[in-house]
Amino acid sequence: MEVPTMSIRIQKTFEALFALEEIRSLFRESLPSGFSPEEETAFRSKTAGLKEIIADLEAGTGVPKVTKIAGTLDIRSREEEYINIHPIQAAGRLTAEARKALISYGDGYSTCDACRKPFRLDKISRPGIAEFHEELAKWLNMDIARVVPGARRGFQAVTGTLVEKGDSVIVSALAHYTEFLAVENAGGIVKEVPLNGENIVTAEATAQKIEEVMRETGKLPALVMIDHFDYQFANEHEIAGIGKVAHEYGIPFLYNGAYTVGVMPVDGKKIGADFVVGSGHKSMASVAPSGVLAMTEEWAPETLRTTTMTGDLTKRKFGIKEVEMLGCTLMGGTLLSMMASFPEVQARSLKWEDEVRRSNYFMDRFRKIAGSRVLSEYPRKHTLTKVDTTGSFDTVARTHKRRGFYFSDELSSHGIVGEFAGATRTWKLNTYGLNDRQVRYLADAFTEIAEKYGLPVEK
Amino acid sequence: MEVPTMSIRIQKTFEALFALEEIRSLFRESLPSGFSPEEETAFRSKTAGLKEIIADLEAGTGVPKVTKIAGTLDIRSREEEYINIHPIQAAGRLTAEARKALISYGDGYSTCDACRKPFRLDKISRPGIAEFHEELAKWLNMDIARVVPGARRGFQAVTGTLVEKGDSVIVSALAHYTEFLAVENAGGIVKEVPLNGENIVTAEATAQKIEEVMRETGKLPALVMIDHFDYQFANEHEIAGIGKVAHEYGIPFLYNGAYTVGVMPVDGKKIGADFVVGSGHKSMASVAPSGVLAMTEEWAPETLRTTTMTGDLTKRKFGIKEVEMLGCTLMGGTLLSMMASFPEVQARSLKWEDEVRRSNYFMDRFRKIAGSRVLSEYPRKHTLTKVDTTGSFDTVARTHKRRGFYFSDELSSHGIVGEFAGATRTWKLNTYGLNDRQVRYLADAFTEIAEKYGLPVEK
Repeated sequence: MEVPTMSIRIQKTFEALFALEEIRSLFRESLPSGFSPEEETAFRSKTAGLKEIIADLEAGTGVPKVTKIAGTLDIRSREEEYINIHPIQAAGRLTAEARKALISYGDGYSTCDACRKPFRLDKISRPGIAEFHEELAKWLNMDIARVVPGARRGFQAVTGTLVEKGDSVIVSALAHYTEFLAVENAGGIVKEVPLNGENIVTAEATAQKIEEVMRETGKLPALVMIDHFDYQFANEHEIAGIGKVAHEYGIPFLYNGAYTVGVMPVDGKKIGADFVVGSGHKSMASVAPSGVLAMTEEWAPETLRTTTMTGDLTKRKFGIKEVEMLGCTLMGGTLLSMMASFPEVQARSLKWEDEVRRSNYFMDRFRKIAGSRVLSEYPRKHTLTKVDTTGSFDTVARTHKRRGFYFSDELSSHGIVGEFAGATRTWKLNTYGLNDRQVRYLADAFTEIAEKYGLPVEK
Repeated sequence: MEVPTMSIRIQKTFEALFALEEIRSLFRESLPSGFSPEEETAFRSKTAGLKEIIADLEAGTGVPKVTKIAGTLDIRSREEEYINIHPIQAAGRLTAEARKALISYGDGYSTCDACRKPFRLDKISRPGIAEFHEELAKWLNMDIARVVPGARRGFQAVTGTLVEKGDSVIVSALAHYTEFLAVENAGGIVKEVPLNGENIVTAEATAQKIEEVMRETGKLPALVMIDHFDYQFANEHEIAGIGKVAHEYGIPFLYNGAYTVGVMPVDGKKIGADFVVGSGHKSMASVAPSGVLAMTEEWAPETLRTTTMTGDLTKRKFGIKEVEMLGCTLMGGTLLSMMASFPEVQARSLKWEDEVRRSNYFMDRFRKIAGSRVLSEYPRKHTLTKVDTTGSFDTVARTHKRRGFYFSDELSSHGIVGEFAGATRTWKLNTYGLNDRQVRYLADAFTEIAEKYGLPVEK
């Protein structure tokens, strides 16, 4: 089997999908009573075209006939054509069921067909959105869950509720920028917990930071918000210990699961989380922007407070709408992709150890290339890893006419994408979702590139 | 042509799309070097199945073989099988190009393939997101635009910037609940402008309300936020006059274009808007949640202020990230659906008069059914209309064993959905996007149902 065959087959798969979307448009433009003779002719012409595409798809023949969407957008086929090691894309790739749901529920307000009193997203039972909310909460071992337009909007709802102007919020020295913004947006001030020598946020350091903030400001921090695995190294931080410390001081604790919820089991109550935040497009195989905000019963009345605003003139009230959610949150394809991926997301979380094993398999092979280092904690506990190739691939870049891009070129010619183009010193990659064969292929490719450029590889 | 043929063809269209998504998964799970013999066999088996589906699709034969997505979700085929008159769904239906873009860009962070310094969504040039932002602003005749997770998140960014605790915000007596929530979330208080006898918000009434608020509170309102067409009647309010009044008092003016941006031309500067907010999933043929917040240069530094938060320990700064946007907003399929629909959305906005003509055609026919009333302003200036059938279809419901649901049953058996099930007194419908034949069919169906139940219909 040759690469060009794959490539044209992938192209023809998209062309067939697109042709079917055009057929779908014929139904949308017709009367419910059926096609007119002209419409039937148009339909037959489309299906004839479709059959040709499928013949090419099967045989791996033909030439690309559609290269742009809406005249300007390229077909994005990197997940089909390549192994994608992009640090933040790996666990957000849609499952096949999510892609089907999206085809079916992509239209704007597609969730609202059977919206009835009391008119709120999480109460809709057809499709089973209400049930999904309950399952989400249960799965995270929390009491109540809401879907939100990205983890950041979950942070915002919590800081908007708990943080007053000038309040301190404890975050990690590796906190994601969206945590900074959510605190700033609420008028708060971030206070970072230092890392230990292994780039880990410990419970002890968190307690010390809380003490320090209390000494400095005379006030308890309003919130502790810590990432279980951070975005830089994907090191595991002492999350349960930190939860315990927060509670000892009586400070609510937000568990940032952007890199955990959807890929590994998360037990909110065991961790001692008051809030669990996850990201749909980062780790739950969902369309962006999507995410989850789960909480304990204790915090729901405040965080999910319903509106108390009354129109001064009309006396209108929209009593069931939640202020921090701004009413409904994910009213269509975003939510349905989360829901359709959810069974697989639950199942795959239970197989996290396999993912970690593959991550370590790759890193073991990678470290055999002399001068290559893993900057994240090692052995790996996650599939996202920060590496340093200053002593290996970068030594080639220094004299190569394409500089660091030679490395991207080599990866690409091996069918690998997602590295930060041109970077050959410190960079990140993610092996999440690759199967055994793909991870071995990936490691082989790195070895081959090293050998091609004369970098010593330990056998 | 018979309805069952249509129905099975639509079913087979979905089955073919789904089969292709499963074929896509084979590529995703394979190596870039090509299929193994086992994979090739699996592929051949899938394409064989696909060809059978397409034979059924063409002939209109066969039986449904896939009825659920992810085991629980029904296939949503109401846009293909029915004429959908749902009040809020009409203009959010995806264009064919948006559906193609979504197939291609549905995966989580699909926008981030070529994200480079300075790492912000609106700066990405591949795909052309930066250019899209510029075009959006220009199209609305505003200076700067951002995409947001729904119009409500646009309101929130503005109230979060301009409204301090206790500030008054002028809204309409027909303001949407999300405006209430956005004001409440910022700590403000809504002050409603009364309607005139025709249910219109006038410039004069707005001026009087501002005066009243100033007398009562001793302070200028912080913001005037008015819907061009409201969600209840879709009446046109004196938006340009209101913009002028707001400016005379020196109050910033937010134009709520949830029912205009994407269906009719909107010229922000001509209107005198400081902010224009539109909804992607309501009126721009886009996946939810999506929307646009556009503004004049004057308001950008404040509303789009970048973060000033510095990590106390690490001294980290994320200088280019915008606080109210929380960094990037629509990082995948939502945005790409907006972008793919945009050329058609621009073109269709120029044909708004045709849509209004069809809306009036339907309402003329509807009013011939004795006892049927249009509660919205008439003749219609919009495709969304509130009607009162207390004197017509409700007279039947009073004695029918299915009560108001008889009417839903009748509509459904004519291939029409989207009415509020069971409602036969006051309810809303939207004819947006229906072509001439479909609108005539819709009017004929109403007439036929009336005649069937002996309601007098004027010839």
